[in-house]
Amino acid sequence: MKRIMLTVAYDGSAYSGFQEQDNAPTIEGEVNRCLSELLGEEVRVAGGSRTDAGVHALCNVAVFDTETRIPGEKICYALNQRLPEDIRIRESREVHAGFHPRHCESRKTYEYRIVNDRFPIPTKRLYAYFTYVPLDEKRMAEAAAYLIGEHDFKSFCSAGSQVLSTVRTIYDIQVEREGEEIAIRVTGNGFLYNMVRIIAGTLIEAGKGLWEPGHMEEIIAARDRGAAGPTAPACGLMLVKYEFV
Amino acid sequence: MKRIMLTVAYDGSAYSGFQEQDNAPTIEGEVNRCLSELLGEEVRVAGGSRTDAGVHALCNVAVFDTETRIPGEKICYALNQRLPEDIRIRESREVHAGFHPRHCESRKTYEYRIVNDRFPIPTKRLYAYFTYVPLDEKRMAEAAAYLIGEHDFKSFCSAGSQVLSTVRTIYDIQVEREGEEIAIRVTGNGFLYNMVRIIAGTLIEAGKGLWEPGHMEEIIAARDRGAAGPTAPACGLMLVKYEFV
Repeated sequence: MKRIMLTVAYDGSAYSGFQEQDNAPTIEGEVNRCLSELLGEEVRVAGGSRTDAGVHALCNVAVFDTETRIPGEKICYALNQRLPEDIRIRESREVHAGFHPRHCESRKTYEYRIVNDRFPIPTKRLYAYFTYVPLDEKRMAEAAAYLIGEHDFKSFCSAGSQVLSTVRTIYDIQVEREGEEIAIRVTGNGFLYNMVRIIAGTLIEAGKGLWEPGHMEEIIAARDRGAAGPTAPACGLMLVKYEFV
Repeated sequence: MKRIMLTVAYDGSAYSGFQEQDNAPTIEGEVNRCLSELLGEEVRVAGGSRTDAGVHALCNVAVFDTETRIPGEKICYALNQRLPEDIRIRESREVHAGFHPRHCESRKTYEYRIVNDRFPIPTKRLYAYFTYVPLDEKRMAEAAAYLIGEHDFKSFCSAGSQVLSTVRTIYDIQVEREGEEIAIRVTGNGFLYNMVRIIAGTLIEAGKGLWEPGHMEEIIAARDRGAAGPTAPACGLMLVKYEFV
């Protein structure tokens, strides 16, 4: 028996999120099905990040145990032959038997992309949120800076979450304009349910000039979901980096 | 009667190219259908660039004549309400009655994108050609430089083209690596059938080291399609700029 870790990239557009569900297409469901066929065993992976419907990833993580004699680092090639084109395994390797991505410390980076132009760009419609309202990325960056550090992010957590603590640490957050696109990149030790999308929705409000960047301090202090901005749409979000520390 | 020019952006993935065809979805067909519904007249646009199936555009051009009293610059808003999400009109404006995009001098810029990494990136699969073979973008740029200027580009024209002359001018061609992606940007006064895709396929051969960059001179001089590389896949290609001079 050995434990294998997969690095999974996907276009989430056609899926009801990462986590397996009955009667809905999911990334995990596709990976389980193709792995089970490939290895001739009933395989069920344990995922790292449970991304929502429509959210994308360059490098989500999944682990599973197997009796196969296929070397760990070869599994990705065989698995990619079976997976649909919108899911690709970028790496597979053996890890120690106790390794579980949800039980060890990690740093994840998410990117939220916005097309901010007079009209949407058709080729970006599934990979960025569109708004024609001019956004001031400098105000967004100023507001974002208040989020860095260890905070209780309860204001940035959707109802329905069952976590014990809403304290998380954001190591870094960058807001950059690249032509007609704005990218928000946020790195942290963990994220609450919808946290990055609520951060994006809140920074978009700051970018529209609805409030002064310093108001972010009050939003954090409120510890109330109603204090923050709306949850920005899923399509703009992508998990871009996942490191274990 | 007035003549209106549209600037059309599209994701070509779902279409059999720009030009209207019976029994196949096309960009032009969708624009004609939605314009005719909107204006209550039978409208048929004349397009600028006849992009192939799967090719994308930020700014293709189409003109049509209409009796409508809707101001030219307002048509884009009403038309976007009817068009599918993968087609967007970025601008509409009145032009003089004799203006036709195919009968006046223009400069077009196409971009060809390549993902050059160990594995494909799922969110880029419809917008870039993928190859895991390492490409040397400096060799590609060196080979590309021979294409600049006025040349007979017969080696870069697919069979079946009925043009009178295969002489064209390339004003500029750039090859740049941005992380795991390579972008080829080529600006010219006109392009032969499949010309940019054959240029891309030929530069990919140079990037793989199959021949020395100086061999590009012989490929041009051959005036023979067999001398150049393969036609690179359509999905990597996008019309990014279209200017009238």
